[in-house]
Amino acid sequence: MANITKKVSWSSRADESGAAGEGTPLLNGSEQPRHSRQPSEGGSLCQIGRLSTVDLEEEITSDEESQRGRPKEIPHNEKLLSLKYESLDYDNIENQLFLEEERKMSYMGFRCLEISRWVVCGLIGFLTGLIACFIDIVVEQLAGIKYQVVKENIEKFTEVGGLSISLLLWAVLNSAIVMLGAIIVAFFEPIAAGSGIPQIKCYLNGIKIPRVVRLKTLVVKVGGVICSVVGGLAVGKEGPMIHSGAVVAAGVSQGRSTSLKRDFKIFEYFRRDTEKRDFVSAGAAAGVSAAFGAPVGGVLFSLEEGASFWNQMLTWRIFFASMISTFTLNFFLSIYHNKPGELSNPGLINFGRFQGDSVAYNLYEIPLFIAMGAIGGLLGALFNVLNYWLTIFRIRYVHRPCLQVMEAMLVAAVTATVSFTMIYFSNDCQPLGPEHTEEYPLQLFCADGEYNSMATAFFNTPERSVRSLFHNQPGTYNPLTLGLFTLTYFFLACWTYGLAVSAGVFIPSLLIGAAWGRLCGILLATITPDGSIWADPGKYALIGAAAQLGGIVRMTLSLTVIMVEATGNVTYGLPIMLVLMTAKIVGDYFVEGLYDIHIKLQSVPFLHWEAPATSHWLTAREVMSSPVTCLNRIEKVGTIVDTLSNTSTNHNGFPVVVKVSGSDEPPKLCGLILRSQLIVLLKHKVFVELARSRLTQRKLQLKDFRDAYPRFPPIQSIHVSQDERECMMDLTEFMNATPYTVPQETSLPRVFKLFRALGLRHLVVVDDENRVVGLVTRKDLARYHLGKHGLEELQLAQT
Amino acid sequence: MANITKKVSWSSRADESGAAGEGTPLLNGSEQPRHSRQPSEGGSLCQIGRLSTVDLEEEITSDEESQRGRPKEIPHNEKLLSLKYESLDYDNIENQLFLEEERKMSYMGFRCLEISRWVVCGLIGFLTGLIACFIDIVVEQLAGIKYQVVKENIEKFTEVGGLSISLLLWAVLNSAIVMLGAIIVAFFEPIAAGSGIPQIKCYLNGIKIPRVVRLKTLVVKVGGVICSVVGGLAVGKEGPMIHSGAVVAAGVSQGRSTSLKRDFKIFEYFRRDTEKRDFVSAGAAAGVSAAFGAPVGGVLFSLEEGASFWNQMLTWRIFFASMISTFTLNFFLSIYHNKPGELSNPGLINFGRFQGDSVAYNLYEIPLFIAMGAIGGLLGALFNVLNYWLTIFRIRYVHRPCLQVMEAMLVAAVTATVSFTMIYFSNDCQPLGPEHTEEYPLQLFCADGEYNSMATAFFNTPERSVRSLFHNQPGTYNPLTLGLFTLTYFFLACWTYGLAVSAGVFIPSLLIGAAWGRLCGILLATITPDGSIWADPGKYALIGAAAQLGGIVRMTLSLTVIMVEATGNVTYGLPIMLVLMTAKIVGDYFVEGLYDIHIKLQSVPFLHWEAPATSHWLTAREVMSSPVTCLNRIEKVGTIVDTLSNTSTNHNGFPVVVKVSGSDEPPKLCGLILRSQLIVLLKHKVFVELARSRLTQRKLQLKDFRDAYPRFPPIQSIHVSQDERECMMDLTEFMNATPYTVPQETSLPRVFKLFRALGLRHLVVVDDENRVVGLVTRKDLARYHLGKHGLEELQLAQT
Repeated sequence: MANITKKVSWSSRADESGAAGEGTPLLNGSEQPRHSRQPSEGGSLCQIGRLSTVDLEEEITSDEESQRGRPKEIPHNEKLLSLKYESLDYDNIENQLFLEEERKMSYMGFRCLEISRWVVCGLIGFLTGLIACFIDIVVEQLAGIKYQVVKENIEKFTEVGGLSISLLLWAVLNSAIVMLGAIIVAFFEPIAAGSGIPQIKCYLNGIKIPRVVRLKTLVVKVGGVICSVVGGLAVGKEGPMIHSGAVVAAGVSQGRSTSLKRDFKIFEYFRRDTEKRDFVSAGAAAGVSAAFGAPVGGVLFSLEEGASFWNQMLTWRIFFASMISTFTLNFFLSIYHNKPGELSNPGLINFGRFQGDSVAYNLYEIPLFIAMGAIGGLLGALFNVLNYWLTIFRIRYVHRPCLQVMEAMLVAAVTATVSFTMIYFSNDCQPLGPEHTEEYPLQLFCADGEYNSMATAFFNTPERSVRSLFHNQPGTYNPLTLGLFTLTYFFLACWTYGLAVSAGVFIPSLLIGAAWGRLCGILLATITPDGSIWADPGKYALIGAAAQLGGIVRMTLSLTVIMVEATGNVTYGLPIMLVLMTAKIVGDYFVEGLYDIHIKLQSVPFLHWEAPATSHWLTAREVMSSPVTCLNRIEKVGTIVDTLSNTSTNHNGFPVVVKVSGSDEPPKLCGLILRSQLIVLLKHKVFVELARSRLTQRKLQLKDFRDAYPRFPPIQSIHVSQDERECMMDLTEFMNATPYTVPQETSLPRVFKLFRALGLRHLVVVDDENRVVGLVTRKDLARYHLGKHGLEELQLAQT
Repeated sequence: MANITKKVSWSSRADESGAAGEGTPLLNGSEQPRHSRQPSEGGSLCQIGRLSTVDLEEEITSDEESQRGRPKEIPHNEKLLSLKYESLDYDNIENQLFLEEERKMSYMGFRCLEISRWVVCGLIGFLTGLIACFIDIVVEQLAGIKYQVVKENIEKFTEVGGLSISLLLWAVLNSAIVMLGAIIVAFFEPIAAGSGIPQIKCYLNGIKIPRVVRLKTLVVKVGGVICSVVGGLAVGKEGPMIHSGAVVAAGVSQGRSTSLKRDFKIFEYFRRDTEKRDFVSAGAAAGVSAAFGAPVGGVLFSLEEGASFWNQMLTWRIFFASMISTFTLNFFLSIYHNKPGELSNPGLINFGRFQGDSVAYNLYEIPLFIAMGAIGGLLGALFNVLNYWLTIFRIRYVHRPCLQVMEAMLVAAVTATVSFTMIYFSNDCQPLGPEHTEEYPLQLFCADGEYNSMATAFFNTPERSVRSLFHNQPGTYNPLTLGLFTLTYFFLACWTYGLAVSAGVFIPSLLIGAAWGRLCGILLATITPDGSIWADPGKYALIGAAAQLGGIVRMTLSLTVIMVEATGNVTYGLPIMLVLMTAKIVGDYFVEGLYDIHIKLQSVPFLHWEAPATSHWLTAREVMSSPVTCLNRIEKVGTIVDTLSNTSTNHNGFPVVVKVSGSDEPPKLCGLILRSQLIVLLKHKVFVELARSRLTQRKLQLKDFRDAYPRFPPIQSIHVSQDERECMMDLTEFMNATPYTVPQETSLPRVFKLFRALGLRHLVVVDDENRVVGLVTRKDLARYHLGKHGLEELQLAQT
């Protein structure tokens, strides 16, 4: 089998390279055990160093086949669980090398490590802030040019009467820019599509999503998001910041770039999944913080999505990164706006300040807020259902990159056309105030000194539109404008999410919600006699925005804090929380959150917080994969190579067992070793000529493992001669001698809790005599979920 | 041995009842093994059903001795670890009864449970808010009367010249009120002393602190805090709210009151440590939320102090409780202030709104803030060191209740005298503004239309003083006044903390910090030419307050959020965070935080977030207690009674082992059973007449265990006849069949992580053959800590 590099189609693009890649975790197969050693009671089926093949999916497309032709229908399905995703190793591999290093390290050594962690977090925050700043400035400049050009064109043709030319200009400009963004995404790095939040959620959940934290992804992401926002799509630039922050974190913390082939020889200690995942949490938080000016919200986002075990020092570092990030953004934007040192731009989106008495709320408004939350939940569910169907459609029919680019261009053109039509037919003219807060007021057919109100909503970057919906004086919009705007923007945003462009759904959601929220406020003011006193439309716009966003993404705690921080006013804490909770409860009744839908459609083995409530009747015995391919502590090289090369069972973790010498007893568990470790051992030819002789053994350092991390070579690239196949390998020093184990009778919730709390990758199931009977991995736990008819089991599939 | 009820001296009061109580966990002793069955390799020392005695502390005072006479010197020492504290069982006891119940429950059943959890959290929030409201109103009313009386008296005597009579009146009034508060605390419920935060920290850490969440404690706490605040001590009413919230949570969630002997037959499912601890987290958060109007801060406080495993649903419930709590307080206070429905009083302490341009900060102010953080750290460390010495002194010499009451009265009188003297000799007269924000302006020797500025600081509740330091116009205080005030209040507050009164240290810290912070601001304004533009003293007062509080209590993340929420302005997030971090770093260089000092002085086995960095050379084998008293799965009643009655080894958890019948092999681990379960079994006489016969066995329900929770009777209260002693007990159904285990070679950090992440109470150490070799409990892990000279081991002691 050739050295296949893995590709993952996170966007709606098909996976071209086929099913199983070099590191694909497969189900532990279940060939008839060769050394069938059936002990009296436990049913311990432990194959020693033998190959096993998958019998579960006989009809599976073999690697060669999938390389030749594209599968006819991409089997994305929310009832499947893909086997191609690996877990991260959040549990430290405590082998002898690691313990020796730790024991050698002095207290000062640990202090230095701790300090360098803080330095890395500071760097992460700083770079994330810089990237946010760069995106913001570039978008503002380019969008400014675009809107100026179109505006001048429209003004030129308003009198003359050739507005269709303006429309054409607008549509072509948008399409061209979006095309650029879609091309780099679809052809160069499909994983950079979308907001990246589902991917980061998965990463923080402990799933290794290939290519998600690479430099190339970051570059494409930044370029893509600029193009899609400037291209006038119904998208925001906030979501992608989270992904960008995560990539920055993964890059900085490793002290090298594999893509650029530069190794700075620093932070080598951090080259393992445990540390990297912690830093990625910090990066994601820094991204949220830069996007919304919400450092605490960022920390809570990271925790809500990622944390298994809450660690105080880690949380502080995350908080530090967040703070630095928002501060950096703030500082550089203040320079850009020629007010150096005045720190008033904490995030990419700024809701403006809600201050003064007009925004206070009263007790009797609470039920209104809750009702709005329910509306948000309903609309959010509708949005999600529509987007779900659309995504299914895209997976089936729009999986070629060129089709994806064309669809993106189409959406861009349609967006421009619809916007133009709405503006054209709107006759909502508003007087242009003396201070006129609108950046690009379009006069069109309005009288002099007036501007078209619909254009404020459409002919603007979405961030500005949100702000004007929040803060413009009562009476700036008439209800019809708002209603039409909500309707069109709702469908545009729904169509846009899932395109092969880098873009987020936060701002469009906020915009839709702000529009209908403001509409609610206006209606309330008209139906109540003295309503104008308390029904400030801006306040209702804010509540509507929260409701809509909550209805779509279904976050509560972190979103509350993000919204509170973005408004800069804690008074709204309670109503926003109530609204988000209502939206979540109502929305969850119909369909899951948008991110969860997309995660499920990718068949990712995502672990929730707890095992399904009604799963107490399942035990580890039923859940585990068995029989397990075990290795002897001193194992023949040939056996190891064969085990690793077995493409049908690509296992990633192997329990190591030991036989009491001279005894007839079955072998006992004595450790756990990973595929990646074995690969490094093979590569460095850590063989002993004869069993039990340690003389010729080359001493490997932890450094060798760290250097290979995270892109371990595939087994096919390692040449082992026939002579070497006869040598032995002593795994004692390299295996994790104290893997976590559970007895067979352990209930699923208990197994789940242990697995989730410690972020494990493999959990060995043993019998009374400490013999291996099975192995629990992520997919074994993730496949149970609560469906409509109680506990359901997902099917496992290779894709 | 008589049935000794345990008393714990959390305040500085001595433990009168002696060392070991009925449920005291002792070190698993190490008598020479009777059934010494030394296997070939593991050294498995497992005593079956035999008593073992402690040989570790031969010189220990026996129970009789300690009952007769009070020990001469109370062995409180931060180098000791007390054995009298038990762990909470955060890990579910998954025995057959539990699993059967869970399996019988339908999906709807779990939904109902989830809903009732939300209801309980809502109730917790509501009641906590009500209590906060009650305390606030009563304090305001009583303090109002007191200050009015004293003010009138002072005004009467200012002219005549008998101000010493006013001083006497003030001092006597204060002493009398404080005496009342001190009496109820010292004589009725010593655990209600202080802020309660260290106790709640310990509880959330997983330590069972006796009497801490009882109704009586709550009543005394509320009464005590009212007395101490009205009595004019340098204390706040905010800290105790956290304790109050926790008690409310523990009470409401259990659906009954053991003190009042009322059982409402609801929430029976929640009668175990796992659920209770979760609710107590919510209660503590609700308390913080009510105290500071900081719902997010409350959640973070609970997480920072309590969470092991972050669970999203739990966090949301905590957040819900917090929100309801601040909302309830807000609502009732708005009615009290005759502005019903206007929700503007989110917390007990209201920093007032920091708004407008005057409070924006500039980049070059950041170093100043950091410098102030360092000052706060230094002053905080000084405060803590002084308080530490004072506490040691109190433990040695002031441990009788009557002495404690007298000390409290003395402090009250001295506080009044010092305040009066300061006011008397101050000549800082300020013009009385037209709106005059001061509640009780004292004219004294000032001209007409002026008031004594020192009196605003001293002659006021501390909350109002803080607010006026934050918000009064520049020039309201002169530097000398502030300097003197800082100095005196610092020592007063330091002396006050640790008295036998219910009171918190938050407000005094804020007040000290606000005073010197404002002083800094004023000095800055004078030394810079155009300084008055940016050096708003109120801003510096805020930063100073944060620095001082951070320097004393050393919280960062939650405190940042609390401060931000209390100021109602997120702009200050970054400076507050920087200040708190600096204060923590500087302070930690000298001494620990105040709460940690008090926890250490009580020798509580507190588990930090991670094992000490340099502890990788320790393994489970060195850490564990061994040999372990094991029980057979079918065990003689007499053996069980003897084991439980053995006062020298009061174990709380017993591994259950099983021997393969007819084989010569050593017994294998098959479960774990707790003392409390055995007690219930004995009480219900769940015996089988003959081994292996299950006919006469009475079926026990989970309900029987729940009814006995949490105050299980001592073994001495259970009568077992001589005949019954010969019966057998089958533990199969009741033991936790799948206890977590680790191999002997597991490193301490790994053991620690498992223990901490899952909130365990007992962790069984097994050898290769699954035989019990040891047991790791909280004290085994807590006794290793990083001292000045690397890893240190604390001594275990009975007190």
